[in-house]
Amino acid sequence: MSTSPPKQSSLPRNEAPNSDSALADHPAAIEALRETGAMFYQRGWSVGTSSNYSVITRHDPLELLVTASGKDKGRLAPHDFVLVNDRGQPVLPDQPKSSAETLLHVVLAQELRVGAVLHTHSVWATLLSDYFAPQGGFGIEGYEMLKGLAGITTHETREWVEIFENSQDIPQLAEQVREALVDPDRPVDHGYLIRRHGLYTWGTDLDEARRHIEIFEFLFEVVARQLILTGELSSAAAALET
Amino acid sequence: MSTSPPKQSSLPRNEAPNSDSALADHPAAIEALRETGAMFYQRGWSVGTSSNYSVITRHDPLELLVTASGKDKGRLAPHDFVLVNDRGQPVLPDQPKSSAETLLHVVLAQELRVGAVLHTHSVWATLLSDYFAPQGGFGIEGYEMLKGLAGITTHETREWVEIFENSQDIPQLAEQVREALVDPDRPVDHGYLIRRHGLYTWGTDLDEARRHIEIFEFLFEVVARQLILTGELSSAAAALET
Amino acid sequence: MSTSPPKQSSLPRNEAPNSDSALADHPAAIEALRETGAMFYQRGWSVGTSSNYSVITRHDPLELLVTASGKDKGRLAPHDFVLVNDRGQPVLPDQPKSSAETLLHVVLAQELRVGAVLHTHSVWATLLSDYFAPQGGFGIEGYEMLKGLAGITTHETREWVEIFENSQDIPQLAEQVREALVDPDRPVDHGYLIRRHGLYTWGTDLDEARRHIEIFEFLFEVVARQLILTGELSSAAAALET
Amino acid sequence: MSTSPPKQSSLPRNEAPNSDSALADHPAAIEALRETGAMFYQRGWSVGTSSNYSVITRHDPLELLVTASGKDKGRLAPHDFVLVNDRGQPVLPDQPKSSAETLLHVVLAQELRVGAVLHTHSVWATLLSDYFAPQGGFGIEGYEMLKGLAGITTHETREWVEIFENSQDIPQLAEQVREALVDPDRPVDHGYLIRRHGLYTWGTDLDEARRHIEIFEFLFEVVARQLILTGELSSAAAALET
Repeated sequence: MSTSPPKQSSLPRNEAPNSDSALADHPAAIEALRETGAMFYQRGWSVGTSSNYSVITRHDPLELLVTASGKDKGRLAPHDFVLVNDRGQPVLPDQPKSSAETLLHVVLAQELRVGAVLHTHSVWATLLSDYFAPQGGFGIEGYEMLKGLAGITTHETREWVEIFENSQDIPQLAEQVREALVDPDRPVDHGYLIRRHGLYTWGTDLDEARRHIEIFEFLFEVVARQLILTGELSSAAAALET
Repeated sequence: MSTSPPKQSSLPRNEAPNSDSALADHPAAIEALRETGAMFYQRGWSVGTSSNYSVITRHDPLELLVTASGKDKGRLAPHDFVLVNDRGQPVLPDQPKSSAETLLHVVLAQELRVGAVLHTHSVWATLLSDYFAPQGGFGIEGYEMLKGLAGITTHETREWVEIFENSQDIPQLAEQVREALVDPDRPVDHGYLIRRHGLYTWGTDLDEARRHIEIFEFLFEVVARQLILTGELSSAAAALET
Repeated sequence: MSTSPPKQSSLPRNEAPNSDSALADHPAAIEALRETGAMFYQRGWSVGTSSNYSVITRHDPLELLVTASGKDKGRLAPHDFVLVNDRGQPVLPDQPKSSAETLLHVVLAQELRVGAVLHTHSVWATLLSDYFAPQGGFGIEGYEMLKGLAGITTHETREWVEIFENSQDIPQLAEQVREALVDPDRPVDHGYLIRRHGLYTWGTDLDEARRHIEIFEFLFEVVARQLILTGELSSAAAALET
Repeated sequence: MSTSPPKQSSLPRNEAPNSDSALADHPAAIEALRETGAMFYQRGWSVGTSSNYSVITRHDPLELLVTASGKDKGRLAPHDFVLVNDRGQPVLPDQPKSSAETLLHVVLAQELRVGAVLHTHSVWATLLSDYFAPQGGFGIEGYEMLKGLAGITTHETREWVEIFENSQDIPQLAEQVREALVDPDRPVDHGYLIRRHGLYTWGTDLDEARRHIEIFEFLFEVVARQLILTGELSSAAAALET
C-alpha cells in the first residue's frame, strides 16, 4: 500500500474535499481491509461488529485509514473507513466516527512506525487473556509457527504475550501500552492481549499484520487445547532451559 | 426495513391479493432474512431446518413476516415466509404454515416493540441451556464483547441469561416469557435460552438482532470453553464484586 | 426426485445405452447428490473420499443411483455415479465400480422402502461409535433438535442409536442390519452407527435424509461435548423417568 | 499430472527460458496446487504462509515444482512456484527462493519415487506431535478412515506415525528422514510428523497426497479428541491384540 503523501488538492477552501474523495485516494488499502474483514469474520475473529483495523497512510504527520465505529466486519462498505490524525480525530469534515480504540492504533504507529495494525476478538484469545492475566502474560515457545512472526528464524525462541487489563479509558490504556513499548525490559515484540477482550498485532504492511493475526490465532488455539489436553503448557519451555 | 403500513390495495374483495403479492411488499426484508439464514446455516446455528426468524412489518395492528415451518434455513426461497398477525395466524389466504413458535416472536414484538426476532439452535447454546438450568440461568460478565449488546457501553457489566424449561405448549411458554419480560425483577434484556433447545434474541432492526446472535454465540462458546478449561466461570464475577 | 421407471429405450440391442445415457435419466438426483457431497465435504463429514450416498430410483425391481467407489465427495463429477440393482451390481455395462458398501444401501431400501440413504464419516460420530460400543448404542433424549427426525413431534422422546461392530464383510454386516431392522425389539428408527466408522441414515427423499444427517451430527456433537464438559450425559434421561 | 520430460526447447542458449516460461510447461500442476492451497488454508492447515507443497515433474534427473518461500497459501499466484533439482536448487535463473524445506520433498521423491508431497501445519498435528514425542510416535488403529491411505484395505490395521524432533538444519533432518525411509524396521508408510511443527505426507499423484492429508488430519482430530474425552487412546489397540 502507498505510504506517499496524498496528492495536493487544488480545491479552494470552501470546496474542501468530502470524506469520500479523501478515501478515494486509498482504494487499494480500502479493498484490502474489506477483504481482510470478510476473511476474519468468516474465521470467527471479528463477529458482532467487533474488531478494528488500520493502515498507516502517512507517517509525518501521522495519518491512518481506520475502520469506522460499529461496522459489520464481514461486509465492510467502501465508505466504512475514516482518515484520522495522531489524536485519532478525523482529518476531514463529514466523516463517520472512527473506532473508539483508534488511539491504540496511533500509539503503535508512533512508537513502532508500523504500516498496519489489526485488532481482533477471538474465542481463544479471550480465554487465554483471562487465564494468564494473573501472571501478566504467557510465553509461547518451541513451535515452528513462531517463525511466521517477523524476524524470528527458529522455533527455539520464546514469544512473550503481554496481557493488559481491559479498560474503557482508551487514552489511559494507550499510555500503558506506550510505556510497555518503550521499556526495554518488557518484550512486546509482535502483539499483545487485552484481558477478556482481544488481540492487537501489527506489521510493516497489511500482509504482514494479517500474517501475524493468523500466527497468533493458530498458536493461541494450540496453547489452549494443549492446556485442555494435558493441563499444562508444552514441555518446550523446560526443554529450552536445559 | 420498512415499518410503514403496506400500500392500500385497490383490488376488489374477490380478487384479494394472494400470499405472493403480499410478500412482494417486503422484498428487502425477505432478501435480508434469506441471507441471514444462509449465514447462520453455514455457522451451524440453524441446521436441520431448525430455527425461525421474523421481521416486524407493522406494529399497530401487529404484523410479522416470519419464516414458514420446516424450511431449510441454508437455502430459503423467496416464498418460504408468511405474514402473520398478533395471534400468529396468516393474514392472507393460501399462505404456508408459519413456524410453530410464532407466538414467541409475537410476545417479544408486543412487549418490547422490537423490529426483528431471531431464534437459533447452536451446540454451545444447547449445552449451556442444560448446564445452568438448575440455577435458572447464568450471568456473563467482564467481557468486552458484551458491548455488542444494545445499550451496553462497558465490559464491567453483567448480562443475565434466563433459561426457560422447554415445552411443546407454545402459548403457555409464550405467556411465561411475557411474565418475565414485564417483571422488573427478572432481567431479560437482550435474549434468553430455552433448555436443550436454543436462543431467542431481538433488536430494533434485523441488523441489531443479527449482531446479538453473533455476540451471544461468541460468549456462549467462551463460557463453555472456559468451563472445560478451568472447571469454573471467569473470575470476572468475583473481580466486579470486590 | 423421480421414482417413475426409466423411459423405454427404442435402441436396438447392439446400441444398448452406455452408463452415461442411463445416468442421463436422473439429472436432478445427480445434481442434488453432487451438491450434498460438496456441502458434507465442507462440513468435514465426507473427507478423504469417504462416505457414500444413494437415491432409490425405482422400487420394483429395486434400482439405486449410488456414488462410485473412491470419489472425492467435495467435487463429484456427473459421471461419478452408478445405477445398481438389488444385489448391488451395475444394471448397465461400462459403469464404474459402485461403493463397496452398496449392500448397506440396498437393505435399507428393501426393508424400509426409503427414497435416499446417506452415509458419512464425522469425527464426533467416530468418537461416539467407539465410546458407547460396549453398551451396543446410546440414547439421545430431551433435545428439541430430535424433532428434526421424521415423525418425532416432541423433545420428550428418546432416540436409540444402535452401534454395529465394523466389518469388511459387507454382505454379513448388511444381514446384521437387516435383522435389526425387522426386529420389533430393536429400535433402529432413523439411523445407526458402525463402530469407529460412521453414520447411516435415510429418508423418504434426499432432502429428508440430508436433514437427518444434519440432526444426528448436531446431536452427536452435543452429546460428545456434554460428556467432555460434565463427564456424563444430560440429565434429561433421569428427568423423563420421574 | 504429467511425469513426462518437458518439451525440448529450440531456443538458443542466450535466450534461455526464464522462470515464467519454465512454469508455463506445468499449468495443470500449478492450478491444482493453487486450489489445494486455497482449500488447506480454508481448513486452517496452512495459515500464516506456513506449509509447502510439491509435484514431481520428472524423476531422472529429478525435478520438482515446489511452492516458493513465504507465500500465502490461501491465495497462491501462478508465479509463486519454483522448479528445483535434486539439491533443492532452482533449475532456471530468475526464480524466487524455494521453500526452506525443499530437501524434505527431495528425499521423499528419491526414496519413494512419489509424485507429490504435501506438508501442512494444523493445530491437531502440532498437539499430537508434542504429546507423543517422548515415545517417538504413535499408532492409529481400528478406524475405517485408515482405508483412505494407499494400500490399506481393512480397518484392522495399525498405522505408525513417526515423530522427528524439529530442527532448522534441514539437510540433517532430511538425512534422518532418509534413514528412517530405508530402514525396514521403522514403518514410515504414508506420512510422518515433525515435533511442534507439522505433517509430511505424499502420494503417487497430487490427488492421492491430498487424500492422505485429509485422512491424517481427520484421524489426528479423532485421536486428540479421544484423549480429551477418555484420557486414553481407543481400545482398538487392545482389541486387535487379543
